[in-house]
Amino acid sequence: MTNPTAAMLVIGDEILSGRTRDSNMYYLAGELTKHGIDLKEVRVVSDDPQAITGAVRALSAGFDHVFTSGGIGPTHDDITADSIAAAFGAQIGVRDDARAILEAHYKTTGVELNAARLRMARIPDGAALIDNPVSSAPGFTIENVHVMAGVPAVFEAMVASVLPGLTGGAPLLSQSLRIMRGEGEIAGTLGALAQEFSDLSIGCYPFQKDGVFGASIVVRGADGARVNAAVTRLSREFDA
Amino acid sequence: MTNPTAAMLVIGDEILSGRTRDSNMYYLAGELTKHGIDLKEVRVVSDDPQAITGAVRALSAGFDHVFTSGGIGPTHDDITADSIAAAFGAQIGVRDDARAILEAHYKTTGVELNAARLRMARIPDGAALIDNPVSSAPGFTIENVHVMAGVPAVFEAMVASVLPGLTGGAPLLSQSLRIMRGEGEIAGTLGALAQEFSDLSIGCYPFQKDGVFGASIVVRGADGARVNAAVTRLSREFDA
Repeated sequence: MTNPTAAMLVIGDEILSGRTRDSNMYYLAGELTKHGIDLKEVRVVSDDPQAITGAVRALSAGFDHVFTSGGIGPTHDDITADSIAAAFGAQIGVRDDARAILEAHYKTTGVELNAARLRMARIPDGAALIDNPVSSAPGFTIENVHVMAGVPAVFEAMVASVLPGLTGGAPLLSQSLRIMRGEGEIAGTLGALAQEFSDLSIGCYPFQKDGVFGASIVVRGADGARVNAAVTRLSREFDA
Repeated sequence: MTNPTAAMLVIGDEILSGRTRDSNMYYLAGELTKHGIDLKEVRVVSDDPQAITGAVRALSAGFDHVFTSGGIGPTHDDITADSIAAAFGAQIGVRDDARAILEAHYKTTGVELNAARLRMARIPDGAALIDNPVSSAPGFTIENVHVMAGVPAVFEAMVASVLPGLTGGAPLLSQSLRIMRGEGEIAGTLGALAQEFSDLSIGCYPFQKDGVFGASIVVRGADGARVNAAVTRLSREFDA
């Protein structure tokens, strides 16, 4: 059985201009791996309707799940909801269920639900709301696309709302081994082992620390006994 | 005159599995902005030949420049050079100029240039080498694609080798203003200003600090006087 696949779409000029360092990709990648869903591709696009609709269509067709981050706030540059509705040819407007959530939230905080804030209740027809325990304005799921906020605390809370409802596969097990030799030294043996253990993924990630070359070797697979066997062999071969 | 456009392709299972937090995207985004080249899209794909060739072809056709990161080391999982050669139908093999660079480097360090290390001299026909002052194994440029290492220190050194040779446009100027009010409070005024200053890009990035809501407003444009005028108006409107 192979695991379900996923892609992520990060929406935001602030990432592409280098103003903001994205952290949602790293967070989502770790959560999906724990849940047994294989993240296969990430795209980052700008706040541009055509870029968003094009990427959503391609990723939705290519993978089991798509997770988006960014562009669902109250301001003029928040165009994600409308662009994703357009990608699926869905109608979009202020929806009563989303409006009720915002009304309840702003009532307790004593803040006016003005026209700008009401934009956050714009949800495509047929979409299911995603709970936002941090700041209440919901995300939504349409087809296989989960649309979430870009602010990391809110994004992470929404991922926690969505993931338990998705079927995961076998979580990928991994073990790693640090070898204090240059990559070029160990590459031959490593390549032979990767052929022998072809059911596993064996990655080699070089580093340099205090002028000394080393490499982390990461062995990944669904079968723990095989992962163990490969790592045992590796540590014997390299005396590590 | 519009600026040249660029895309980035990050290659690596270790990013998609959440094992490693990518830092090259943030670095490249900042350098390109300074150089007047607009980064329009980033893709992250796994160590898979089809994923790499597909993404390289799409990005090379869609943007003026493509920058890749990762997968050009000596081990069996380093398949970037071969995949990119395949994307352009170019022959690839150990090239004399690249081999000479490695020979000189390993001679001074007293390390053997074995078969694995020699893989790093595999360069597609017709490609120009990219200087690597950190660890010598070169990157390369083929068509409009600049192929660089994933290790951040090496990636950054290669970007510094490539960028001065590329024609940039007017660097995008930006000014920002922090406003300690919720996004929903300022969205109306902000939207009106964005329409009035339609030659500029006005972005609104919410944050939450010690329980207080605020927003950073970033005004970007090539004309410094216009950026100034918009920020002056903003600070007057919001008394910030």
